[in-house]
Amino acid sequence: MRDVAVIGVGITPFGELWNKSLRNLFTEAALAAIDDSGVDRIQSMYVGCMSSGLFVGQEHLAALAADYLGQRHIPSTRVESACASGGLAMRLGYMEVASGMNDVVLVGGVEKMTDSTGPEATFGLGTAADQEYECYHGITFPGLYALIARAHMEKYGTTREQLAMVAVKNHKNGANNPNAQYPFEITVDGVLKSVMIADPLRILDCSPITDGAAAAILCPVDMAKKLGKPIIKVIGTGHATDTIQLCDRDDPTWLEATYLAAKQAYAMADKKPSDIDFFEVHDCFTIAEICVMEALGLVDKGKGGPAVEAGKTAIEGEFPINPSGGLKSKGHPVGATGIAQVYEIVKQFRGEAEGRQVKNARIAMTQNMGGSGASTVTHIFERE
Amino acid sequence: MRDVAVIGVGITPFGELWNKSLRNLFTEAALAAIDDSGVDRIQSMYVGCMSSGLFVGQEHLAALAADYLGQRHIPSTRVESACASGGLAMRLGYMEVASGMNDVVLVGGVEKMTDSTGPEATFGLGTAADQEYECYHGITFPGLYALIARAHMEKYGTTREQLAMVAVKNHKNGANNPNAQYPFEITVDGVLKSVMIADPLRILDCSPITDGAAAAILCPVDMAKKLGKPIIKVIGTGHATDTIQLCDRDDPTWLEATYLAAKQAYAMADKKPSDIDFFEVHDCFTIAEICVMEALGLVDKGKGGPAVEAGKTAIEGEFPINPSGGLKSKGHPVGATGIAQVYEIVKQFRGEAEGRQVKNARIAMTQNMGGSGASTVTHIFERE
Repeated sequence: MRDVAVIGVGITPFGELWNKSLRNLFTEAALAAIDDSGVDRIQSMYVGCMSSGLFVGQEHLAALAADYLGQRHIPSTRVESACASGGLAMRLGYMEVASGMNDVVLVGGVEKMTDSTGPEATFGLGTAADQEYECYHGITFPGLYALIARAHMEKYGTTREQLAMVAVKNHKNGANNPNAQYPFEITVDGVLKSVMIADPLRILDCSPITDGAAAAILCPVDMAKKLGKPIIKVIGTGHATDTIQLCDRDDPTWLEATYLAAKQAYAMADKKPSDIDFFEVHDCFTIAEICVMEALGLVDKGKGGPAVEAGKTAIEGEFPINPSGGLKSKGHPVGATGIAQVYEIVKQFRGEAEGRQVKNARIAMTQNMGGSGASTVTHIFERE
Repeated sequence: MRDVAVIGVGITPFGELWNKSLRNLFTEAALAAIDDSGVDRIQSMYVGCMSSGLFVGQEHLAALAADYLGQRHIPSTRVESACASGGLAMRLGYMEVASGMNDVVLVGGVEKMTDSTGPEATFGLGTAADQEYECYHGITFPGLYALIARAHMEKYGTTREQLAMVAVKNHKNGANNPNAQYPFEITVDGVLKSVMIADPLRILDCSPITDGAAAAILCPVDMAKKLGKPIIKVIGTGHATDTIQLCDRDDPTWLEATYLAAKQAYAMADKKPSDIDFFEVHDCFTIAEICVMEALGLVDKGKGGPAVEAGKTAIEGEFPINPSGGLKSKGHPVGATGIAQVYEIVKQFRGEAEGRQVKNARIAMTQNMGGSGASTVTHIFERE
């Protein structure tokens, strides 16, 4: 297996983009990534998307995306793992380059969600859970994460305020992200007084419905060196699954797929959690970020809430999480999120994350999760 | 890259399976493949599915499939390329084993289509075309292939009877396939008198709406030898795309993606069309099989119709096509079709295709296509 580098990234603004369609969004991000990388061709591409079928009535997205990108005839593959679709595109692109099957591969993610009305979008997102045994009985994603939150509060004493602090921290970071959907600060009090969605989660605990796309160009490290690009290496990858139903897990507060995917990536990279300078993780709800930091091994089980409260996850903290603003402030176009995490890491490594820069960052990790944690894809990157 | 073998296959009956859900179908085929292979574990899996989201309201299928297969925690990836989703699962599984990333990989495909009512199923299938520029104007897949058929008839003199002969030949083969949805013979006269769907295509020119699943187990050839399995090697793979819209092609009768994907596979396998003993191809409509045989290089452009009429594609013909019965007689659960083709090749190579056996077959090719030809995945297999 060859060493693989990320040599270019592109992203669209995230938000309610009424004047851009699914294909426009993908093409915009992909062209930006190609331009950023300086390559004059791509040989293969992967498109992460959760549900263009349900959101805009379009499957066969990979062929369409290649066509509209002016890359007709190249192999183009769509992958789906709910909200982890983008991370999965990254992993398969990595595999293709590492294996030697192709040299220059584009990995992208996209979701056009706001063309669906509210109930349709909620139904669409719900298809990441078990349709027959969860959704059918009326639960939605805020409900599933509310169950996790309540269990975490009961078991570990996590407070309502600690949940709010996740959102406050991410909005503080996202306020300096020019592509964020909600680039403004919020307060703990504001979160606690926001509209109740699924007790104990309020609207400001939830990531939004978002349109957006992101893309990255991968190639062998040897080629990246010849191109004179800064070397940002993929040094670890992990992918694991868990029960599709939350109720099938021994402990609903523990994200086993995240734990396993992280373990794989740490082992491959020969790194431990304390070696990682910052993290981009899947904060689809505030409680998710707390559970994720426990599963990644940044804190002991149950200690996520106090770690947030102590400022350990802030940009200047012990282990910065989501300098981009995370899904909460940046927005969460589900299929694009995993690649948007890669975008942030490249921007940080290049010192281009103005206002939200993590100092001297050299090693970083992405964690992208599907459903209530039934899929997780992780990657570790190193700047040479 | 390591040499890869197919060591086990499984399939469900194809048909209107009212008592089996999406997850039941996949699990049944996957368990059969595992049992057939004799392995005691799988390390990773790929699930090809076109639109479980639109057909049964379930995305995040790969995690669900791993969970219900009792394989929770392993990496599980869903891939989608419309009706070529199964072939794509095969290609990515091949890549994973060939690269050395994992040794024992399950590749499967599934579609549960009959839970949708007629208009919903037609809408779902239509999402393989361009939603905004084709479907929106009212065309469906029979309509797109009718345009191709009419153009082929005008340009090359292909006759209405020659189209019918494709269906007659495939039903003759499928009559001996115990898993076929329509295992009975039909006549040219029967096709010509069947209900008109989209002129010139009649109902007996069209593959049906089908529930079903298929799976295969891949591992390195070295491991297959140690397991004492018959060696069925993957010696070629190809994947290409074309314009998503039919009207964007210079010649609607020419399947460029199939031509390119075949060219890649032939080159990798170092084989030419005449080296291949039989073919399993994507006859979603009778005209498709004619265009495919031209793009695969079995006959010159425009000569597909006469080749069928001359019996060249029959089991005892010069280049047998679809001994399984093809999509027409066997059925077409879209995401499963590409893997069902692999199933047939393994059965043929093992001499287990009773009543439809191609004699002395040692090299065979699959061609799996999405939409009106915007994606194609090909594979070439060799029995040692």
